[in-house]
Amino acid sequence: MRCFASDNYSGVHPEIMEALNRANYEHMPSYGNDAITTRTIALFKDLFGEPCEVFFVYNGTGANTLALAALTQRFNTVICSEWAHIHVDESTAPENFTGCKLVSVPSHNGKITPEAVEEKIHRLGDPHHAQARVISISQLTEYATVYHPEEIRALSLLAKKYGLYLHMDGARISNAAVSLNLTFRAFTREAGVDIVSFGGTKNGMMFGEAIVIFNPALAQNFAYIRKLGMQLHSKTRYISAQFEALLSNDLWKRNATHANRMARKLADELSRFPEVKITQPVDGNGVFAVLPPQLIKPLQDEVFFYVWNEKRNEVRLMCSFDTQEEEIKRFVNRLSKLLNA
Amino acid sequence: MRCFASDNYSGVHPEIMEALNRANYEHMPSYGNDAITTRTIALFKDLFGEPCEVFFVYNGTGANTLALAALTQRFNTVICSEWAHIHVDESTAPENFTGCKLVSVPSHNGKITPEAVEEKIHRLGDPHHAQARVISISQLTEYATVYHPEEIRALSLLAKKYGLYLHMDGARISNAAVSLNLTFRAFTREAGVDIVSFGGTKNGMMFGEAIVIFNPALAQNFAYIRKLGMQLHSKTRYISAQFEALLSNDLWKRNATHANRMARKLADELSRFPEVKITQPVDGNGVFAVLPPQLIKPLQDEVFFYVWNEKRNEVRLMCSFDTQEEEIKRFVNRLSKLLNA
Amino acid sequence: MRCFASDNYSGVHPEIMEALNRANYEHMPSYGNDAITTRTIALFKDLFGEPCEVFFVYNGTGANTLALAALTQRFNTVICSEWAHIHVDESTAPENFTGCKLVSVPSHNGKITPEAVEEKIHRLGDPHHAQARVISISQLTEYATVYHPEEIRALSLLAKKYGLYLHMDGARISNAAVSLNLTFRAFTREAGVDIVSFGGTKNGMMFGEAIVIFNPALAQNFAYIRKLGMQLHSKTRYISAQFEALLSNDLWKRNATHANRMARKLADELSRFPEVKITQPVDGNGVFAVLPPQLIKPLQDEVFFYVWNEKRNEVRLMCSFDTQEEEIKRFVNRLSKLLNA
Amino acid sequence: MRCFASDNYSGVHPEIMEALNRANYEHMPSYGNDAITTRTIALFKDLFGEPCEVFFVYNGTGANTLALAALTQRFNTVICSEWAHIHVDESTAPENFTGCKLVSVPSHNGKITPEAVEEKIHRLGDPHHAQARVISISQLTEYATVYHPEEIRALSLLAKKYGLYLHMDGARISNAAVSLNLTFRAFTREAGVDIVSFGGTKNGMMFGEAIVIFNPALAQNFAYIRKLGMQLHSKTRYISAQFEALLSNDLWKRNATHANRMARKLADELSRFPEVKITQPVDGNGVFAVLPPQLIKPLQDEVFFYVWNEKRNEVRLMCSFDTQEEEIKRFVNRLSKLLNA
Repeated sequence: MRCFASDNYSGVHPEIMEALNRANYEHMPSYGNDAITTRTIALFKDLFGEPCEVFFVYNGTGANTLALAALTQRFNTVICSEWAHIHVDESTAPENFTGCKLVSVPSHNGKITPEAVEEKIHRLGDPHHAQARVISISQLTEYATVYHPEEIRALSLLAKKYGLYLHMDGARISNAAVSLNLTFRAFTREAGVDIVSFGGTKNGMMFGEAIVIFNPALAQNFAYIRKLGMQLHSKTRYISAQFEALLSNDLWKRNATHANRMARKLADELSRFPEVKITQPVDGNGVFAVLPPQLIKPLQDEVFFYVWNEKRNEVRLMCSFDTQEEEIKRFVNRLSKLLNA
Repeated sequence: MRCFASDNYSGVHPEIMEALNRANYEHMPSYGNDAITTRTIALFKDLFGEPCEVFFVYNGTGANTLALAALTQRFNTVICSEWAHIHVDESTAPENFTGCKLVSVPSHNGKITPEAVEEKIHRLGDPHHAQARVISISQLTEYATVYHPEEIRALSLLAKKYGLYLHMDGARISNAAVSLNLTFRAFTREAGVDIVSFGGTKNGMMFGEAIVIFNPALAQNFAYIRKLGMQLHSKTRYISAQFEALLSNDLWKRNATHANRMARKLADELSRFPEVKITQPVDGNGVFAVLPPQLIKPLQDEVFFYVWNEKRNEVRLMCSFDTQEEEIKRFVNRLSKLLNA
Repeated sequence: MRCFASDNYSGVHPEIMEALNRANYEHMPSYGNDAITTRTIALFKDLFGEPCEVFFVYNGTGANTLALAALTQRFNTVICSEWAHIHVDESTAPENFTGCKLVSVPSHNGKITPEAVEEKIHRLGDPHHAQARVISISQLTEYATVYHPEEIRALSLLAKKYGLYLHMDGARISNAAVSLNLTFRAFTREAGVDIVSFGGTKNGMMFGEAIVIFNPALAQNFAYIRKLGMQLHSKTRYISAQFEALLSNDLWKRNATHANRMARKLADELSRFPEVKITQPVDGNGVFAVLPPQLIKPLQDEVFFYVWNEKRNEVRLMCSFDTQEEEIKRFVNRLSKLLNA
Repeated sequence: MRCFASDNYSGVHPEIMEALNRANYEHMPSYGNDAITTRTIALFKDLFGEPCEVFFVYNGTGANTLALAALTQRFNTVICSEWAHIHVDESTAPENFTGCKLVSVPSHNGKITPEAVEEKIHRLGDPHHAQARVISISQLTEYATVYHPEEIRALSLLAKKYGLYLHMDGARISNAAVSLNLTFRAFTREAGVDIVSFGGTKNGMMFGEAIVIFNPALAQNFAYIRKLGMQLHSKTRYISAQFEALLSNDLWKRNATHANRMARKLADELSRFPEVKITQPVDGNGVFAVLPPQLIKPLQDEVFFYVWNEKRNEVRLMCSFDTQEEEIKRFVNRLSKLLNA
């Protein structure tokens, strides 16, 4: 049932599964005091440069929420896109754990601009009003588009102007790096990002995300925050081993390159049909398209996917490290037949 | 480095690892809507009887904290042993997530009594005073002792008398079942327990715990609580597959039986030394013993373990599904040599 | 320094001050168990009809936040105007105390419509998405406009359609009642409102607000919520005595009538100047107007007021029970001179 | 119905009522930007010395809870007496607002010792265990006993040794100052206290408490914390005016002296009866005594008071600024008659 529903419908990449099998011997200290974790953190530091602190957690909601907690006090606001995962897909986890107010701004192709964000930075110093403290962006965005380093830098400059921090939800950060053809460092640390939720699960891992903090002062209490946030894994080696595999031999890049290429290919095929309107730039591993409404159900029956916007008949077609050309062919053939029927 | 430090120093049992490998094919719906999860929940229902609702989460702190959240409002108290994991080893996760006050009572061999608990149930109906709502027990206890069904039933009767609930932290529930030689049902549902944190990680899993709720009304909002508690796994199949293996072919029992037997053997060996005082009944997979203080460090160098109580020179020796007689021999030989030196 | 800054710049109405002096004798049971409180709650029940439960708290932020807590679980959302006091003037008190997400919608003259609200009610039953539970309106609105009963009823019908509750922030509810020339009951209980924050401080009291709950089931745990919310006053009689005075001899009505009349008069005077644009219907005790920017500072020096919207040069002129025609004259004279200068 | 139930059964002292009447004129800036507040904060600074930051809040639960929030992060513990008001009489307000765990220690005459507290400071640096951060003492204690400066200093030294803070719940701080015959400064700032909840309501005020912070760094975000804690009063002048009266002309001292003297007198009278056992040193304005059980109800009917400990037949008799010898006489006469009956 390979499909376009979500990159978390995929299983685990064989090289990561192999790493898990390899890590499974003997006793090891728990809670991150094992050799695999030490080695893996070093890999992150190579990728992102020092200083940087790295913490492993279970999932994306945990990574984002705990990252925001590291940056805020509970009278703060977090400014994000109206489509931000933290705002619309993580229940009230951010509000409950940080106490902060999430303030959303309109986005263009899923991206927010300094102008829109600046509108929400006001009444600083007024205790009656929640105080802006974080700008949070998703890279890839929820529309599978990519922020260019200069766009990130512009948001970072705005953040610094007002004493705010810049958080990146990198659930699909590898897809972004491949799309930009840049190192992770170039569009995070070097573009002024303060803290990154580094995604693993959507790029072929079984579970586990990493939080990368560039300013050590912000990491000071993070070990406590992670524990009280219920995100500290006892057998940490099994998260680390997966990340070690992902960051070795360019697996992260191979997986993301494939997923992005499949999305590109799918988009190219779809663009041949005048009845289909691709609504977003296809920067990463997702294609957003408006389909003739009566075709959606039969197409879902062929290769499942989710409707993103019911009113607009806009669907989201996600590709993954394990998407095959076969699915694309089946999807396009079915579409073709339906349109000609 | 096989050791007696903790049952979470162990790796993953080969049958569980095999199940993970087997589950790793194709796409599957995420967030628990997959066939493996459906099958595994049915296994739980077979074990515990119906009605019962089952939810998978990442870890023990998550399982306990979310279970308590299902039972309480934030002006409540949770009464537990002074040694309860929720009280001394989960940071302030329970307080932060539930808002409740944890009220601890003295324990005997890690177990709490109705008399001690009843002392903490007072001023019911007085808004100035946090209102007792949950009794929480650990099975095995943190001293690796076991509650007998009649002890649990007595606590349950007390709970019912005052309108409280009874929670069981079953991080080592399999070791308890083996120790009691009873079905899970006999000392949970049938003994008046309302909600169980069913442990997986300490009995050979890689990650994942289950929450078992007998009263469907208490489960009503649990899906929301789990999500906002950051404990909903996208690729749920990989938790379910592990539990499926654990609950199939009596793997849970084989693992726990072995661990308990190793602890028994270790205790038997130690009891031959008059210089060693075993401090707790060895009901499960742990041995607590007072050692001559000068021997602790050299023994830790041989087979690592943790000091439980520095003042009393009491150490904790945990056995696991993968403990081998070899470690016991090495430990006892070293002890013997040190005592004769 | 009588001014148009805010109705909380005013002091305490003499009849209320007199009531406080009268209440100040002998000992009385604390925490609301006194005779004055009993009498005053009966007055509320007369006004609002039965069943209804009444709780006194300290301030408006407390009243609103605790009211929302009575209606929600922490995976819920509260839908309100983008200008709602709970959203922009109460820091993160609602988020911190309830855990909920506040979702704002655009307003017209400070009022929200069922159409705008319905856009924010979606993905019900989806644990990933915060679940809509409350519609909150301010009566008067923050723009000092008034909701008509049919507007409230329309929002209430929408609420019922989706199983939501309707909360009214009545910080200026007396001004609204006078403006509508209706009983409180007619535009609250009878219009489908579930819970009211009944304002005292802005209508001549020293401190204290009331929460009026029509559905007794929603009041069940409120005494506990109030205590843990730090809003239970020990010497409750001093809140009750003020409300008793306010609700006796139509003081609430006399105060609000005067304040509304002063605003009307101020607006009438201002509308004679073509350079001044009144931006909102003057339903209650506030006037919103765009002034020539260079006049704002000198006018503030004469009779102080706040700028509401810096970009638009829109100012807010609030009248109170103690506003005198004298201030209006001074303000208008100064404006006239400045315009002719 | 003058009685011994509580010092918050009393009304408002006439000089404070007079101050409220005096403050009630014209408009004043709200939220503490008024002249009375400025003057009153200066009075506090005179009493406590500089640097010191002063914040007014509504009530004792608010003062204590917000003070603790200023000192902690939510993975911390607050160590206090088993009888501490924050632990047994403020519902779960401290846990909910701070996220911290309250850890109680046994007390002697309501007072805690460095030895007992040090037992609870352990596992510092271990993220699994809530981290000790505050020692909180009540002055007077809940048993109306007083800490001597050297006792406070000893706790402060312990706090400093481990990087903890020392909080004083001074709901009855004036009674303590009178009892010790010392300045406030001598047993707070100069004894190493970091933050004080300064009580007003129990010493003759209508409402209002103050938080006094000696270390300005700890006060940095307090204005935000107070607002989100729902404890910022709009018409602040009415809290300030009361404190101004209380701190002027030694009213605080006259009130507390009288209340203490009445308790002393009551205790002296009671000690004449061999059937009555006074259980605590009578340092302040309360007497704790064991009474013959069958006399409690008839005595309550004469002059009401609360039973403190049902099992021990221990009652609490509180005196206040307005207690009169008349009540003492009535109480003692009734007791005498009952004993002779």
